[in-house]
Amino acid sequence: RRRPPVREVLFFPSRPSCTEALLAEAAGLRTTARPCPCPLPRVDSSLSRLLRHLLSARRSLEICLFAFSSPQLGRAVQLLHRRGVRVRIVTDAQYMGLPGSQIGLLRHAGIQVRHDQEDGYMHHKFAVVDRRMLITGSLNWTTQAIQNNRENVLVVEDAEYVKPFLDEFERIWEEYNPINYRFF
Amino acid sequence: RRRPPVREVLFFPSRPSCTEALLAEAAGLRTTARPCPCPLPRVDSSLSRLLRHLLSARRSLEICLFAFSSPQLGRAVQLLHRRGVRVRIVTDAQYMGLPGSQIGLLRHAGIQVRHDQEDGYMHHKFAVVDRRMLITGSLNWTTQAIQNNRENVLVVEDAEYVKPFLDEFERIWEEYNPINYRFF
Repeated sequence: RRRPPVREVLFFPSRPSCTEALLAEAAGLRTTARPCPCPLPRVDSSLSRLLRHLLSARRSLEICLFAFSSPQLGRAVQLLHRRGVRVRIVTDAQYMGLPGSQIGLLRHAGIQVRHDQEDGYMHHKFAVVDRRMLITGSLNWTTQAIQNNRENVLVVEDAEYVKPFLDEFERIWEEYNPINYRFF
Repeated sequence: RRRPPVREVLFFPSRPSCTEALLAEAAGLRTTARPCPCPLPRVDSSLSRLLRHLLSARRSLEICLFAFSSPQLGRAVQLLHRRGVRVRIVTDAQYMGLPGSQIGLLRHAGIQVRHDQEDGYMHHKFAVVDRRMLITGSLNWTTQAIQNNRENVLVVEDAEYVKPFLDEFERIWEEYNPINYRFF
């Protein structure tokens, strides 16, 4: 490995910032021609850093989230899927159908999603990029949490932390296989 | 430092286990004389490991929690307070008054508690033991989460992760100073 492992802590609420240029660039669009007209500053923020880490995915992205309703993060995930990254999402059954949830859009885009069928919550909030970088913390991927809550996110490449989360993801992914779903 | 830094990942729901012996031992009580009559096995579990890490505190404990209602974790914190550990708690104003919350009991025991006065949630779920060990993740300290939810907790002694959380705690602690509270 050429560079030292990422070890970053992000706190929220995120400083308000425009992330359009970041998303357009990742989509391969030229952004200088038609800059976003919104009044938000184009500065580094916890949200833009989180987006950048996600958008660094080249091969795989595992996502395990209680709540996912942020349009920016949803667009980033769709973009990775279109770019050929293998995206898999595990989420909570009670939350996924609520208004504003991104889960329907992501499924519609062809991304694999599995959910629990349990009384308890699937309350994890983590993602693993290229089986190498763990993104985890208190933050659900919702606009409310990003803009208004006190939240933390760790971005970690130490294998001692990444490996157990990958194993947990595979365990839950198999357990939530649709062949195990019960229909009432 | 004599031993390598702790780097542990705990997953929940926790395997059911009796934690009475652990708490009695930490309180300096003899447990062999009157063992707990409950039918739960006396085994290692994610909850018992979390308790052990907390009970290792000798000097200070910072707690920053959205929801705190677990009686076992509440007893552990009270025990540390009685043992002379400097305990400080930051929590969410909307949640702290709900039935089952431990916050009232902890305040009654003389522990300092501060809370937000914001529309957003104080959604962190972390603690720092002796300014050295960070305990953080998706887990609120509630029986529901411990017994029923899919949750994660990282236990970490790397200074690169511990320091930002300590700074965040001190920042929030000052911001939530009661002299700043507004009364309507």
